[in-house]
Amino acid sequence: MFTLGNFISLSTFGESHGAAYGGIVTNFPAGLSVDFEGIQHQLDRRKPGQSAIVTQRKESDTVKFLSGIFEGKTTGTPIGFIIENENQKSKDYGHLEHAYRPSHADFTYDQKFGIRDHRGGGKSSARETVNWVVAGALAKQILPADIAINAYVSSVGEIFCEKPYQDLDFSKTDSNEIRCPDEEAAAKMISKIKAIKKQGNTIGGTVTCAIKNLPTGIGEPVFGKLQAELAKAMMNINAAKGFEYGSGFCGAKMTGQEHNDLFNDDFTTKTNLSGGIQGGISNGMDVYFRVAFKPIATILRPQESVDKNGNRVTLEGKGRHDPCVLPRVIPVVESLVAFVLADLFLINQIRKL
Amino acid sequence: MFTLGNFISLSTFGESHGAAYGGIVTNFPAGLSVDFEGIQHQLDRRKPGQSAIVTQRKESDTVKFLSGIFEGKTTGTPIGFIIENENQKSKDYGHLEHAYRPSHADFTYDQKFGIRDHRGGGKSSARETVNWVVAGALAKQILPADIAINAYVSSVGEIFCEKPYQDLDFSKTDSNEIRCPDEEAAAKMISKIKAIKKQGNTIGGTVTCAIKNLPTGIGEPVFGKLQAELAKAMMNINAAKGFEYGSGFCGAKMTGQEHNDLFNDDFTTKTNLSGGIQGGISNGMDVYFRVAFKPIATILRPQESVDKNGNRVTLEGKGRHDPCVLPRVIPVVESLVAFVLADLFLINQIRKL
Amino acid sequence: MFTLGNFISLSTFGESHGAAYGGIVTNFPAGLSVDFEGIQHQLDRRKPGQSAIVTQRKESDTVKFLSGIFEGKTTGTPIGFIIENENQKSKDYGHLEHAYRPSHADFTYDQKFGIRDHRGGGKSSARETVNWVVAGALAKQILPADIAINAYVSSVGEIFCEKPYQDLDFSKTDSNEIRCPDEEAAAKMISKIKAIKKQGNTIGGTVTCAIKNLPTGIGEPVFGKLQAELAKAMMNINAAKGFEYGSGFCGAKMTGQEHNDLFNDDFTTKTNLSGGIQGGISNGMDVYFRVAFKPIATILRPQESVDKNGNRVTLEGKGRHDPCVLPRVIPVVESLVAFVLADLFLINQIRKL
Amino acid sequence: MFTLGNFISLSTFGESHGAAYGGIVTNFPAGLSVDFEGIQHQLDRRKPGQSAIVTQRKESDTVKFLSGIFEGKTTGTPIGFIIENENQKSKDYGHLEHAYRPSHADFTYDQKFGIRDHRGGGKSSARETVNWVVAGALAKQILPADIAINAYVSSVGEIFCEKPYQDLDFSKTDSNEIRCPDEEAAAKMISKIKAIKKQGNTIGGTVTCAIKNLPTGIGEPVFGKLQAELAKAMMNINAAKGFEYGSGFCGAKMTGQEHNDLFNDDFTTKTNLSGGIQGGISNGMDVYFRVAFKPIATILRPQESVDKNGNRVTLEGKGRHDPCVLPRVIPVVESLVAFVLADLFLINQIRKL
Repeated sequence: MFTLGNFISLSTFGESHGAAYGGIVTNFPAGLSVDFEGIQHQLDRRKPGQSAIVTQRKESDTVKFLSGIFEGKTTGTPIGFIIENENQKSKDYGHLEHAYRPSHADFTYDQKFGIRDHRGGGKSSARETVNWVVAGALAKQILPADIAINAYVSSVGEIFCEKPYQDLDFSKTDSNEIRCPDEEAAAKMISKIKAIKKQGNTIGGTVTCAIKNLPTGIGEPVFGKLQAELAKAMMNINAAKGFEYGSGFCGAKMTGQEHNDLFNDDFTTKTNLSGGIQGGISNGMDVYFRVAFKPIATILRPQESVDKNGNRVTLEGKGRHDPCVLPRVIPVVESLVAFVLADLFLINQIRKL
Repeated sequence: MFTLGNFISLSTFGESHGAAYGGIVTNFPAGLSVDFEGIQHQLDRRKPGQSAIVTQRKESDTVKFLSGIFEGKTTGTPIGFIIENENQKSKDYGHLEHAYRPSHADFTYDQKFGIRDHRGGGKSSARETVNWVVAGALAKQILPADIAINAYVSSVGEIFCEKPYQDLDFSKTDSNEIRCPDEEAAAKMISKIKAIKKQGNTIGGTVTCAIKNLPTGIGEPVFGKLQAELAKAMMNINAAKGFEYGSGFCGAKMTGQEHNDLFNDDFTTKTNLSGGIQGGISNGMDVYFRVAFKPIATILRPQESVDKNGNRVTLEGKGRHDPCVLPRVIPVVESLVAFVLADLFLINQIRKL
Repeated sequence: MFTLGNFISLSTFGESHGAAYGGIVTNFPAGLSVDFEGIQHQLDRRKPGQSAIVTQRKESDTVKFLSGIFEGKTTGTPIGFIIENENQKSKDYGHLEHAYRPSHADFTYDQKFGIRDHRGGGKSSARETVNWVVAGALAKQILPADIAINAYVSSVGEIFCEKPYQDLDFSKTDSNEIRCPDEEAAAKMISKIKAIKKQGNTIGGTVTCAIKNLPTGIGEPVFGKLQAELAKAMMNINAAKGFEYGSGFCGAKMTGQEHNDLFNDDFTTKTNLSGGIQGGISNGMDVYFRVAFKPIATILRPQESVDKNGNRVTLEGKGRHDPCVLPRVIPVVESLVAFVLADLFLINQIRKL
Repeated sequence: MFTLGNFISLSTFGESHGAAYGGIVTNFPAGLSVDFEGIQHQLDRRKPGQSAIVTQRKESDTVKFLSGIFEGKTTGTPIGFIIENENQKSKDYGHLEHAYRPSHADFTYDQKFGIRDHRGGGKSSARETVNWVVAGALAKQILPADIAINAYVSSVGEIFCEKPYQDLDFSKTDSNEIRCPDEEAAAKMISKIKAIKKQGNTIGGTVTCAIKNLPTGIGEPVFGKLQAELAKAMMNINAAKGFEYGSGFCGAKMTGQEHNDLFNDDFTTKTNLSGGIQGGISNGMDVYFRVAFKPIATILRPQESVDKNGNRVTLEGKGRHDPCVLPRVIPVVESLVAFVLADLFLINQIRKL
């Protein structure tokens, strides 16, 4: 309950200014050579301080595996890992002990639990996603090597990458700070974020993700549909506001005649408005989806707010914050997708005799 | 695994042309007087044959409770129920035994399972949602009586209900065939569907749902965020293509300054772009979201397709089909929301000492 | 939660004098030809009225499958089934509406739920096991055909089957009313039960179960040990008071030197005090265990008791009751074992790459 | 799946000679003041090197909490903890890399996973129980303070503590090395173990546990019976071979007339052969049970065995081993009981409206 995955399962812990983050992956198959460098590479893509358009908090984000791996291979037993917090500046948060920051989870945590670790947002910090990257990068190795999961920033504010994902060269995603493989759009997005940052403001955007070479049969018929499992994972990411796959919200404007994907003789389809999924199960075509992220709530400008006693206070973001969540969310999206797919892929192995 | 709910849990069974649908709700609290009429009323809202713009399949959709209720009250033991299928016309589907209908799950089920009940789509039929309505209507009774869950059709094709949900009178939702409380928009939507139906075509649309008076504290911090649980439930509905809550995809275009919901002195917020949820937990404001539904794939026009051996076939929808899923999906959305909320509401009772 | 199985999962419903029992098996693999006769045969072994030493309640105990099976084969989708109650004589229980029968669950259900269906013990009736037999008989088909699961009555009161299981011919288990393959012991057991029955009394006993040809590798290292999964299943059977496997309680009197099972060159072991399990995982030797069952609480003699208001009452069992649970519990034990093994067997398929 | 608990849930990791053990407890209620000393006290009761009759491995077994606790109180978010391994002497195990020790899990792990960490038994080491003690000591704080959980050694080999648990003074349990509150029996047990140890041999025994002041209503009707949850937890302990509660295996020899627990006017019962549970639910009387433990497999004497290639080898236990598991298993039993009860206790809060 409240873990990630149905068969392979991820439990996590950690708060922004606690001692460490970490997690346990259970039921992970034995015999897989762990690509430690690959995992660290994904962590490096997510870590703060990479560029001028993300937070300057300094964290090496080095993962330490504590169990479940022997001489470089998974043993089938639970894989425990931790990522120590190094650069907590809790004093940046002393003024927030009793204040409720607008559009943060301070108020709701207090309401729900009657207590909260206010430092850096505590459990509600997006630093939790560091755990997901470790688990997802591990899980990716379960999948057939030709499955490609590529996420990229498809819009920042009103600036869109107009090219469809099919026309993009994903090898270029990491070649710029915003992680949009369309260099022209990327340049505009970066300028926009820099301008926003200068104002002490933040901005939202969208991420598109395409999964290629996924075999047929992934996903379950009821309450385990592939799109539902993906949506659940994505909507658990901090700041996510929306999810759509295939034709998405545009599909709601169409007629059946327009929307139906007719078959070719080899069971591929002429179009792919379905987004690679029929009845919750992958059909072998590309699975693609888009996730909306709101702007980060911490702005470096004064805002009126209240404290827990209902007194009015003026808050102004201190500390080191991202003006835009998007470039760092790319490995998070890809990792969650890998975990969801690996889980359903393993399950699919035992769904027919 | 692959059931609905975390604590109270719904398992379901049934195929379109099998003997019956049904389900079991486990861990349902004891002592609740079951509102049998209310449950049947929700089933009646979902059932086929209600109006000219839905399928003419005749099903009384009468639920029969088999356990867990004694002298009208829940006993805390598993609640079993069935809804018998009455009006199967399986011969309508004989021609589909080996054919793969475009944008249906025929191909994916065959790929996954190597076998399928082809009659009426078998397990992939949206008739499964009859189970969810029963369970959701039951679960709704767990919630405090003042929590109001109202879904309505907010668009059909390009026709939108332009009024925000706050300006609508939900007592009018059921007053027209399409279930849009804005009568002017409703009239246009109904005309549109009738025109589309005449062409043998189908059309998509969106549903908006607003939840009022939800207490604070509902939802869990990680992997159980309220928006993620709602998204998962919605994206499991047949034909759903997208989910957004609060500012949704529009929020991705905004800046932090625009998007932040400032507090009033009583901890309500001046705006509600957050959609009533912070950090995955309800904040006492309205929770609202929107779901996109693609047009139904079965059209009453000839379509080129293939059979399981890769031979080309021409298909033309027979049987009794909906030109638009939307009016019948309203009670499904509301029921799933009720189930998700009741589950998280109960769990929240034991999250602090 | 509170279902049977980890991957394949059984939810059940039903009360002794309700309309029906039934269940849903989810995640059952597709493509298996259902042995309907075999399933009904197991139900017939469990059903009342088979012989003079069991209850005379008349139930045909016919299972009706409602989904998940198409043209005789499983489709991979949830398998729903019901067994209708036919011979409820609820008036036999009118005098028990407020009384608490000694060593029954009347008092505890009232304490827990504040309400209960008192007729025939309601949910606490062992008639629930009819569901388990259906699910277990189905699940058995997942297992390799050479796996043999044989349970038998190994003691009634002080009368023991002295032969070890290895010396018994299991084809004789069903050849007598008590289901003990040692005919001499069986005769004594039957006499004992008849004498006890004549006194209006009941008697306890033990069941031994041996599993042959189980492959190595079944069971999980932590919190899913094979012996723990078996123990849990057995201890959920009504009237079970104890579980031991391999050397069991006798093993607690031994030294390591005596108890260790030394290896043969082919990895079989010279002795099998371990009971076929090491570290929670099957080692290819026979798995065997013993379950203790207390005497049935309903005796046909007057007993002093109290009602829910604390008034003293005199109760005397009416209705049709078993003098000894054992012969009917044999298929229940075997079915639960089959379900537990099938679940862990499937899981083991995806535990190494 | 394969975690401990239904609502509050424990995931664990760690191997005998890995870097650390640890775990995550999810869904733990907020607002509880953590008794760090009490937790460490339970760890100290379990740790090696306490006395002459246990292993001399030196481990401080200090738990470090990494999250979920703020200023000494639980926050409702996942509680992560680790216990670092300090005194691994892996070279003691070099000779075991390919050998299969009799009655150990070496062979079964290799069969299941195709790989294993052979050092100190890897994952199959009972050192895993260190995690359970932390989680159980935490969980105990959820329970009403007057619930007393007392386990003690009730037999070593053929030496039994003849007094029933009701006649024992549990404040004396820890006053001797074997943890049997009957001092006379304790002295005999200790002598026996010393003699056995001198021979390089090991010996089994039993643990009895009594739970006093448990409220009524704990446990679930089907597949969550209190005795089944306890049995499952106990049978997951390394070396456990049997479980019985209340009358246990003796109850199988009795008649209903003898076995039934008649009610007093206050709903207590005159006898308690039921062991405090009816229909899977606590009835307010003492819950008591007994667990059988086999002798530890590692003996300090030469034993014939095989290696993974089927070659014969002679093994002789090196390293630091327990001659008897019993004194150190007492806090493990108590901790698991506390966890199981806390979990079912919380769940019971939401089982009736």
